[in-house]
Amino acid sequence: MGGDLGPFATVVGSASAANDVPDLEIRLFGPKRRLDDEISRLPRHLAAAGSRMSVVNAPEVVGQDQRVSEALRRGACSSMAKMLDCVAAGEVRAGVSAGNTGALMALARRAMGTVPGISRPAISTSIPTRNQGRCYLLDLGANVEVSADRLIEFALMGEAMARHVDGLSSPRVALLNLGVEGSKGPSSVRQADAWLRDQPDIAYVGFMEGDGIFSGGADVVVCDGFVGNAVLKASEGLARMLVERVQATFDAHWGSRLVGAMARPALRRLKRELDPVRYNGASLLGLDGIVVKSHGSADATGFHYAVLRAVQEVKHDLPTRLVAELVQRRPTADSCAGGVRGGNRPDGDTSQQEKGD
Amino acid sequence: MGGDLGPFATVVGSASAANDVPDLEIRLFGPKRRLDDEISRLPRHLAAAGSRMSVVNAPEVVGQDQRVSEALRRGACSSMAKMLDCVAAGEVRAGVSAGNTGALMALARRAMGTVPGISRPAISTSIPTRNQGRCYLLDLGANVEVSADRLIEFALMGEAMARHVDGLSSPRVALLNLGVEGSKGPSSVRQADAWLRDQPDIAYVGFMEGDGIFSGGADVVVCDGFVGNAVLKASEGLARMLVERVQATFDAHWGSRLVGAMARPALRRLKRELDPVRYNGASLLGLDGIVVKSHGSADATGFHYAVLRAVQEVKHDLPTRLVAELVQRRPTADSCAGGVRGGNRPDGDTSQQEKGD
Repeated sequence: MGGDLGPFATVVGSASAANDVPDLEIRLFGPKRRLDDEISRLPRHLAAAGSRMSVVNAPEVVGQDQRVSEALRRGACSSMAKMLDCVAAGEVRAGVSAGNTGALMALARRAMGTVPGISRPAISTSIPTRNQGRCYLLDLGANVEVSADRLIEFALMGEAMARHVDGLSSPRVALLNLGVEGSKGPSSVRQADAWLRDQPDIAYVGFMEGDGIFSGGADVVVCDGFVGNAVLKASEGLARMLVERVQATFDAHWGSRLVGAMARPALRRLKRELDPVRYNGASLLGLDGIVVKSHGSADATGFHYAVLRAVQEVKHDLPTRLVAELVQRRPTADSCAGGVRGGNRPDGDTSQQEKGD
Repeated sequence: MGGDLGPFATVVGSASAANDVPDLEIRLFGPKRRLDDEISRLPRHLAAAGSRMSVVNAPEVVGQDQRVSEALRRGACSSMAKMLDCVAAGEVRAGVSAGNTGALMALARRAMGTVPGISRPAISTSIPTRNQGRCYLLDLGANVEVSADRLIEFALMGEAMARHVDGLSSPRVALLNLGVEGSKGPSSVRQADAWLRDQPDIAYVGFMEGDGIFSGGADVVVCDGFVGNAVLKASEGLARMLVERVQATFDAHWGSRLVGAMARPALRRLKRELDPVRYNGASLLGLDGIVVKSHGSADATGFHYAVLRAVQEVKHDLPTRLVAELVQRRPTADSCAGGVRGGNRPDGDTSQQEKGD
């Protein structure tokens, strides 16, 4: 029920994903009449896929602006909570929602918990890089301030996801920092760096500055959720502005209808390529179950991709892989100096941590 | 001496700025022979401006990768330190450098100190927004982890700069956060928000997410230096990738030389517009003197703009304005709860601070 476009985008997007994946069955959670209505109005080419969709009546909906605490208190009967309970019970293999991210994360944690070895889940999406590559960025907002241990968990989860879901044999992992020299940045980042450097089985490439995210130099870039969220949203805003400016440049300088018409499809493609979250889905990583968040303002195409993302994670059985690996790999409390939860951010003067360029 | 392109970019950029500003005199710091050489090779149209340039011999140079502590220990004779001493002594009105940012900040603080009421300087540059606007983003990396007090100082400095240098009567100020609701984000950000809301003479617009930076909805966006640096560098990387892709789209789909030739100048313009730091100069704000940082990889045009930025700040006498205003405006230690330096970041579980979408 979530996204800004309501169940229309969700239903059409799901149907079109089911159309692409012949053995995919969709269970929709929300007010039954509205959803049945949308299914009955599916375009003809999706009607067959529509027959693989069923509806679970859940009249209550978590609002996009609802506070997490309120969603937790009241949300047991909401479409989101019912869907997540179904995932937790193993009745469905994965859940996809375009709703309130904070509520989704909190309800999912309550319903299914995290895999052993992971204290808190992270949100990750893959973003486009140069040379037609992609790179997982995490966390994107689930964890505002994090310790070194948390950053290490993010790195391990992202690495495992890139290996299992994307089939990379040795995904390159980087830590986001404001310089590439080891002496820079908050202590949590430097401590995570020290630990990752010591892991022979991780292709750790060291610190990376913001521009490195798009360089194609890493497959997984790790940062805290405040930074990741700011970077991702800023990138969305910049991409939108840029596409507008390219369009305006066309309109102003090569006013001919011919060039304009030739350019439009390419611009549309570009826009889609550059709108990572909207056309990708973000994984809630570390849960003991598969949950994918579709962008709140995603259209049917965006929701379609979010469902396909969930299908990929089901195919590669991501949570089971995470369990198997993380228990072995994760550092013990002693192995990472200062790895006590939340205790890694220095409170003193940070005057030595200046930016080098 | 700093930038990646060496004194060529610095000398040509300075000369071209002097060409634009008839009463501008340039003093260059570095190995005298090399600088004299560059001046003698200035293109003919800049030769007259070259006569307003003098050279101060300073054979030692701070390296781009030199650690801040080393630059402080050894840097008294460097071209950078000599230049900053000149600014501090009032022999010149402003300093511009394309060198090591961390060293520049540290040496500048040592040479000239901060204005009363400001504990540490911040780095700020103006970035392009929709509708051809601009917006100051700060801090960009001088302060990695900050308290509410520090964020408030950034807000006050940015607001004053936008008012005095850009002539805005009431600049709109926003705090970067991962949601627009008051309950979200780290406590330092929420505390700064509470204080700013209470100031009747500041056009405070509240929280802004990353995409808001480019929306044109604020003239000043405030965040800590780690986040600002990540956002700015990521934006640079994304802009570069986008321009490449637009170019590739042209080459692949409208292969005709005519369209390509028509597009190239527009693409170049776009590239320049979107490379905020390289073509803008960043202000070291809060110093008791004017220092502008030109991007390390800036060409002569980039350095030219950095010099013009310094000229603007001199014309509007920015440090004096900051002194006059900040002493009155800055909160006392009591007025902002938890405003103790570095003490505002909670160390506990941040589980309630989830991302809302």
